[in-house]
Amino acid sequence: MADWLAALARRADLRAKAGLTRRLSPRTADDAVVDLAGNDYLGLSAHPEVVAAAAKALSEYGLGATGSRLVRGSTGAHHALEETLADWLGVDRSLVFSSGYLANLGAVRALVRPRTLLVSDAHNHASLIDGCRISGAETVVTPHADVDAVATALAAAPDRPAVVVTESVFSVDGDLAPLARLHATARVHGAVLLVDDAHALGVVGPTGAGAVAAAGLTGEPDVVVTATLSKALGGAGGVVAGPAEFVRHLVETARTFIYDTALPPAVAAGVHAAVGLARDGDGLRAELAARAALAVDRLRAAGLDVSAPDAAVVSVTAPGPEAATDWAAACRETGVAVGCFRPPSTPDSRSRLRLTIGAGPSRADFERALEVIVECAP
Amino acid sequence: MADWLAALARRADLRAKAGLTRRLSPRTADDAVVDLAGNDYLGLSAHPEVVAAAAKALSEYGLGATGSRLVRGSTGAHHALEETLADWLGVDRSLVFSSGYLANLGAVRALVRPRTLLVSDAHNHASLIDGCRISGAETVVTPHADVDAVATALAAAPDRPAVVVTESVFSVDGDLAPLARLHATARVHGAVLLVDDAHALGVVGPTGAGAVAAAGLTGEPDVVVTATLSKALGGAGGVVAGPAEFVRHLVETARTFIYDTALPPAVAAGVHAAVGLARDGDGLRAELAARAALAVDRLRAAGLDVSAPDAAVVSVTAPGPEAATDWAAACRETGVAVGCFRPPSTPDSRSRLRLTIGAGPSRADFERALEVIVECAP
Repeated sequence: MADWLAALARRADLRAKAGLTRRLSPRTADDAVVDLAGNDYLGLSAHPEVVAAAAKALSEYGLGATGSRLVRGSTGAHHALEETLADWLGVDRSLVFSSGYLANLGAVRALVRPRTLLVSDAHNHASLIDGCRISGAETVVTPHADVDAVATALAAAPDRPAVVVTESVFSVDGDLAPLARLHATARVHGAVLLVDDAHALGVVGPTGAGAVAAAGLTGEPDVVVTATLSKALGGAGGVVAGPAEFVRHLVETARTFIYDTALPPAVAAGVHAAVGLARDGDGLRAELAARAALAVDRLRAAGLDVSAPDAAVVSVTAPGPEAATDWAAACRETGVAVGCFRPPSTPDSRSRLRLTIGAGPSRADFERALEVIVECAP
Repeated sequence: MADWLAALARRADLRAKAGLTRRLSPRTADDAVVDLAGNDYLGLSAHPEVVAAAAKALSEYGLGATGSRLVRGSTGAHHALEETLADWLGVDRSLVFSSGYLANLGAVRALVRPRTLLVSDAHNHASLIDGCRISGAETVVTPHADVDAVATALAAAPDRPAVVVTESVFSVDGDLAPLARLHATARVHGAVLLVDDAHALGVVGPTGAGAVAAAGLTGEPDVVVTATLSKALGGAGGVVAGPAEFVRHLVETARTFIYDTALPPAVAAGVHAAVGLARDGDGLRAELAARAALAVDRLRAAGLDVSAPDAAVVSVTAPGPEAATDWAAACRETGVAVGCFRPPSTPDSRSRLRLTIGAGPSRADFERALEVIVECAP
């Protein structure tokens, strides 16, 4: 074996000994598990209207977008989706990327000018961290959800442009950033606030417009919102939403927008249908909130250490990485899929089960899944 | 207007004065232009078998993958596609990412160990450049297609791990990297060769398996191949293909793989069908080669400065960015879409039309399009 491959094999062995091996487990189309692992919060990925809209665009446009957005990849489906997202989010303009990861890379970098200081929450998603890295800007990582630390970092650079970078609902523990206070702090210092609303869009806020809307920050000129179209909206892709001048700047300069093949038109059309359903989804959101509360009650009653969810993500502490893997595997064998998060995919050294509450399963299946999680606990 | 937005508006004004404004022009589903701008080289994006396979998976799985590949996003459609791609490309294993951009970011970073030196061609795609940046590794940029410069860079770091990073068919000028010589040079120095085969896959090589296959490098243990699934394969997404140990390393460590929602199953299924058609597509490839030769003949006969295409990308020099924009716009008004590449999307200061030769248009439409390009020349 070549030297470099032998070195990779040794590293894989070390990961295996630490209980950190990751394996792909393809699911089938008729997979009957109760899903508390995916991000299809509103159950829209298989909604008949979403599938029908995607199928129609597939038959009209074909499969791929055939080019980057500025060459041949922009279609009426992308344009319509961007108009609707901007309207929903209450911003001048939105721009669809082919993934949420690429949207975050593009947004962070586009906010960086010479001498910009980035102030990034310690629990931020990998795509935001990579956005900070790739921008080349000086980045201060502040303790999680610590507004005072953000204020201190901004105050230490009074004459520099600055951007405060945060998720709204954090992806592993499901807690909500103090958005209103972060925004007030950013504004005092003339900084921009970038919020990744991926786990909140469709799930919280008026008409499901997300945590930024819920915090009363809709349309503020110093707020930029990013999100994925692959979670509550049931599709794929990402979006950046904000002031018109900023979105124009993205169109003209963002490398992850310009040099990337566009999202397939069928996906854009399906997501467009999902936005309509999500806006009208107050009933689904009420059910999600009830299920999240029920999950916390049942699991805490069983003596488990459970996070207080601000949206539809519930974190349950596991004793260690191998125990987490075994716990998730035992649930899976009993027909329940749960997320298993181990370092380095966790913001600290703790391993967890991550339960994502969805409106897709029946209430009875959901309650049975909670029982399974308790029964399989280490 | 907020200060930061005013600053962005001033920068947009400067770009406008330099003729470098970029605008999105959505196309409709019944858009009747002759397309010499997109990357649907084999015309597979709207092939009935591709669309039917995608539609079937859409009805079975729904629209989105509902999670990252390691959580809920891996389906039978992804697994089948990866097996088929590995077989086609003659490698141990392949791994599908949600975009080619993310595949390149993940592949470059995963090849970096402590002290690794990256040797990157000056004309490389933005995603490879960003991969080098985000890896944090020292990167030497060598003059375009300059094997001696690569050898010199490697010889200057004799005791360090090294990776030579190149496209095969370069995206702007359509020329082919000297892959066999690059590989021989890399091997002498114990370096890995990373080849982005995006514009060659499906277009060149035995059974269309790409430029790496055409160079006789199939399955070499020190070669890693990346490609998009959005060009000749007519869909979306990206792939990294190579030795099993390396792909396992990606699954377990690549941030752009782990922390990203999976490609929609319908897209994976459609691309899978496209691979079958591409492998059997020698007739299409012969037609592409004939059209590329015809384009060069016709355009040179008209006195234009035209690149010598090694695949299906032809570059035509324009006098400047505004002339390029006007030229492309005039073609568009006459029903022909051509790519318009201006700095900073070009590897040098020259503006160009980029013609992508596709098997989709009829031969008559294609020949008419060449006439239009000549007639509209500045």
